[in-house]
Amino acid sequence: MENIYLERIAELRTMMQTRDWDAVILTGSDPHNSEYPPERYKQILFLTGFGGEAAGLAVTADEAILWTDTRYYIDAKQVLAGSGISLRRQAKLNSGELASWLSEQFQDAEGAQIAIDALTTSAQLEGLLREAVAGRGELIGVSDLLSPLWPDRPELPQTPLFTFDSEEGRSAKLAFLREFCRRQQCDGLLLGSLDEVAWTMDVRAFDIEYTPFVISYLLVTEKEAVWYVLKGSIEDPGSREALERLAADGVRIEDYSAALLLADDLQDGIRLYCNPQCLNAALRDALCAAGIDIVEGDSPVEARKAIRTEGEIEATRRAHLIDGIAVEKFLFKLEKALEAGQAVSERDAALWLGQLRAANEEYLSDSFETISAYGPGAALPHYVVPEENAPLLRRKGLFLCDSGGQYLCGTTDITRTVPLGECTPLEKEDYTLVMKGHIALSSAIFPEGTPGCRIDALARDALWRTRRNFGHATGHGVGFLLSVHEGPECIRPDLNPTPLQPGMVVSCEPGIYREGLHGVRHENLMLCVRDSENEFGAWLRFETLTLCHFDSSALMTELLTKEELDWLNAYNARVYATLSPYLSEEEAAWLREKTSPIIA
Amino acid sequence: MENIYLERIAELRTMMQTRDWDAVILTGSDPHNSEYPPERYKQILFLTGFGGEAAGLAVTADEAILWTDTRYYIDAKQVLAGSGISLRRQAKLNSGELASWLSEQFQDAEGAQIAIDALTTSAQLEGLLREAVAGRGELIGVSDLLSPLWPDRPELPQTPLFTFDSEEGRSAKLAFLREFCRRQQCDGLLLGSLDEVAWTMDVRAFDIEYTPFVISYLLVTEKEAVWYVLKGSIEDPGSREALERLAADGVRIEDYSAALLLADDLQDGIRLYCNPQCLNAALRDALCAAGIDIVEGDSPVEARKAIRTEGEIEATRRAHLIDGIAVEKFLFKLEKALEAGQAVSERDAALWLGQLRAANEEYLSDSFETISAYGPGAALPHYVVPEENAPLLRRKGLFLCDSGGQYLCGTTDITRTVPLGECTPLEKEDYTLVMKGHIALSSAIFPEGTPGCRIDALARDALWRTRRNFGHATGHGVGFLLSVHEGPECIRPDLNPTPLQPGMVVSCEPGIYREGLHGVRHENLMLCVRDSENEFGAWLRFETLTLCHFDSSALMTELLTKEELDWLNAYNARVYATLSPYLSEEEAAWLREKTSPIIA
Repeated sequence: MENIYLERIAELRTMMQTRDWDAVILTGSDPHNSEYPPERYKQILFLTGFGGEAAGLAVTADEAILWTDTRYYIDAKQVLAGSGISLRRQAKLNSGELASWLSEQFQDAEGAQIAIDALTTSAQLEGLLREAVAGRGELIGVSDLLSPLWPDRPELPQTPLFTFDSEEGRSAKLAFLREFCRRQQCDGLLLGSLDEVAWTMDVRAFDIEYTPFVISYLLVTEKEAVWYVLKGSIEDPGSREALERLAADGVRIEDYSAALLLADDLQDGIRLYCNPQCLNAALRDALCAAGIDIVEGDSPVEARKAIRTEGEIEATRRAHLIDGIAVEKFLFKLEKALEAGQAVSERDAALWLGQLRAANEEYLSDSFETISAYGPGAALPHYVVPEENAPLLRRKGLFLCDSGGQYLCGTTDITRTVPLGECTPLEKEDYTLVMKGHIALSSAIFPEGTPGCRIDALARDALWRTRRNFGHATGHGVGFLLSVHEGPECIRPDLNPTPLQPGMVVSCEPGIYREGLHGVRHENLMLCVRDSENEFGAWLRFETLTLCHFDSSALMTELLTKEELDWLNAYNARVYATLSPYLSEEEAAWLREKTSPIIA
Repeated sequence: MENIYLERIAELRTMMQTRDWDAVILTGSDPHNSEYPPERYKQILFLTGFGGEAAGLAVTADEAILWTDTRYYIDAKQVLAGSGISLRRQAKLNSGELASWLSEQFQDAEGAQIAIDALTTSAQLEGLLREAVAGRGELIGVSDLLSPLWPDRPELPQTPLFTFDSEEGRSAKLAFLREFCRRQQCDGLLLGSLDEVAWTMDVRAFDIEYTPFVISYLLVTEKEAVWYVLKGSIEDPGSREALERLAADGVRIEDYSAALLLADDLQDGIRLYCNPQCLNAALRDALCAAGIDIVEGDSPVEARKAIRTEGEIEATRRAHLIDGIAVEKFLFKLEKALEAGQAVSERDAALWLGQLRAANEEYLSDSFETISAYGPGAALPHYVVPEENAPLLRRKGLFLCDSGGQYLCGTTDITRTVPLGECTPLEKEDYTLVMKGHIALSSAIFPEGTPGCRIDALARDALWRTRRNFGHATGHGVGFLLSVHEGPECIRPDLNPTPLQPGMVVSCEPGIYREGLHGVRHENLMLCVRDSENEFGAWLRFETLTLCHFDSSALMTELLTKEELDWLNAYNARVYATLSPYLSEEEAAWLREKTSPIIA
């Protein structure tokens, strides 16, 4: 750990002493509880150097503790080594570990003063923390708590806005929200979650890296829709068309800073529906102070936008065609470069892939920072390529590449683990067992109403039988030109009751990670579709959206059943048939070779 | 439906009219919320003729509705045909369907009067129902509501008590409960659940058919333990030894009828811990009236008794040896009788099996009514053999037999589906696919902390892939000389978060049911055990307890993998090796034949 972080934590402690705070609790999120916050809100990175998402930090006079989940644990261990900051595991963001710690830490306290950043703590988390010290201390909400220690703190990004015609249309979506409010006997609804605002307004920008969000709030009442957007975005000439179209649909545009005053737009005593997970404590307090009656509940947008419309499904298929072409071209280029003895670093590989994606005219950006990891680096599920001296790829072992694109026609996310030459028996076994898990889930048929957690084990059973496992979700929802991670559905161990439904897009990405050795992950996106109906009920299955071959050279085919080989051969054949018309003759010949049927 | 039931419902409606009740709601349970109530509390059977457990009944002036779960649905449909009683599905006992109906039925009511039987409605259900009509009506709790219409209503059974030396011992169990109370800052604890009372007191009787329970309540305070038992049991000469031993351990014995006055044993204002699922509304009201402060929560007994002690595990293994011998002798006898052209009815088969179990000196009773179902009968997961003219077994197709024993050394539960001759291709396919599911779960390895709902799909995946399914749980917990169904663990679709833990005993019983054709179920009991620990964490697996061969003659071996065949051959070989020393020469030779390895 560099001295700069030790100094910053020391400065925070000085501030704590001056203000008589016994602890400061910070999250790695922003005022909208975004998974990927803008630079301004990377508070934990500023204080500790640890940049993973989904973290929490508590600092007292003599202790500093960072919580993160399994995905980032090994990484955090390295970053924090020697820093004096202790590292703890959390099951999930905001899942209560911070509150438990607080409750324990101050169990015998009297009048403890716990400072939180009111802008980046959700009303839900604030409630948990307040309860955790109830009777023994109080929470002090401070907006932009770290700013005094952070002279060059970045401003919020303010990028140009653009709209597009969604199948449903903005007016229909607003009508849906108004109908929801009526059913909830509410006078209005406030959306704080950036993906939900973007979906409702059919508007995008790139305020958040990799994710086409506009930093904003949306207030919907029976009479009007008020959109609170940053001044820079409003004033950007590139935003003009989008703003005109929004205005034409009756949307009133206000400055973002007015959001904390939005109570002025509302009458005292009205009932306002909010999701406490995406409403920050500062805004909640402002609403309460203005006499607004907050009705808390799950957002109606999340479940609705998770179900793709027919048009979105068609577009998503095109996004995967475009993406598959780019990834196949990349894999071809990589193989040829290595064959030619060229020095290719992890960073080179990531750049090439980005360039190949960007060549398509519908490309807007990558959907997250490409994970380009050779050998031991791939043992970190969320590896970040070093900016300098990135490791070189060698002509043996496994190269893991997890990447995705934001296209006008949708969002993609794909991982391929590429054998670059001779592999060890353990690499081959891991590669094959993860493939078995991937196939088991991809080919599953399951009754209507089944939540993802009930079929998560299908992707793990082959690993479990050899006492292997992985610490991340098997599958996450993926947005439509929105976040690459979105709910409410998922396929993971925790008992999320949301059923998988036709029209949902989820990833299938089992893996195995061996610290210091290698990592394997095979990831496709899948569309949940209706299969059939019979005397036993209605059946669902998945249609694989991702189009990119799986390399068979590292497979231990003797571990695969005939059904598994059939699946793999059929998938690779489909990839070749679909993509080859868009490839050069040389690339197509190479892909034909790569996808030639595996004989048991 | 016979006229007698129509008459009884008419009489109930007359009573409702006289007393100005708008509805009567009854459950199929008893004052202890038992799964299998004594005859006196089979209220739904009395009113409708439907005898399945886990039912609910609502009667209004012009409607009567019965709720039951999937297990009993086909059966209930037959029983209620033409009765005017409508049938609805419920997901699980007391899971809220009654409350939802009530809320809907009386949504615009004012001052509705809803009568419930206060003795057979749990405090939990009563709360749900009260909430469902809040502001629009009130609940009227009546104890033994049906008695005026039921002149010869059976008295409660009062059978002799016996004790046995559990490994932990009664004093240690009482100390555990007192420690629990201290941690909960309670002055005492009231157990209403019959299995929990039996476990704590190390006492048994047969007040409930098939289940060695004593109808009683147990009050544990810091100072004393008071056991409220029926007079007939106390006065039975056979109970003397048990009562002396209990008294020697400081247990005060009181008459059952005093339980409703047990508040007299407590000081006004003390805090009493109760599980509202097993506390009936009448007793709850009595406690409240006496100023007792009821603290509601899960019982500490349930989770503790689910984990077998080492001694209980050894005994359970012996119970399965004894049981396996009886079932193999039965299967031998059955096959020989049919071969000899003897007429064997479903009832004969059930009687033979009961007699063979009873031959062992540790046998106490069957653990539930044997399901002995040939052909279409087996399509009802909870088939009841007709008392007269039971169908004859034929030398073709499938015979399903689900049965179990209560032995001094434990409780068993086993289902074998027996091919009696030529089987149709569909019978064979169903038989084989259910076997695949059975093997997948039996041989599963899974991480410590995994709840049963996460591995339920392993037993269904092979069925799902051919779009087949079954509507009951894959596995339920089994008690130790207690109920054949016990929690908190289970392996079923609903998201019960209880992790499977070493020492738990669960069933593995996937099935397929085809109305009018046949049913298949393969059931063993399994002990959850530690497997190993490695870099990926701690691993658990199952040890199969049940010892009885699976017949391979109906298997479509081409549908089985090598691993599945290996599992089956190894299991059958173990059954032969373990049981053959206890069989006659002829039986052993037959079993050797039955268990000879299947070659793919």
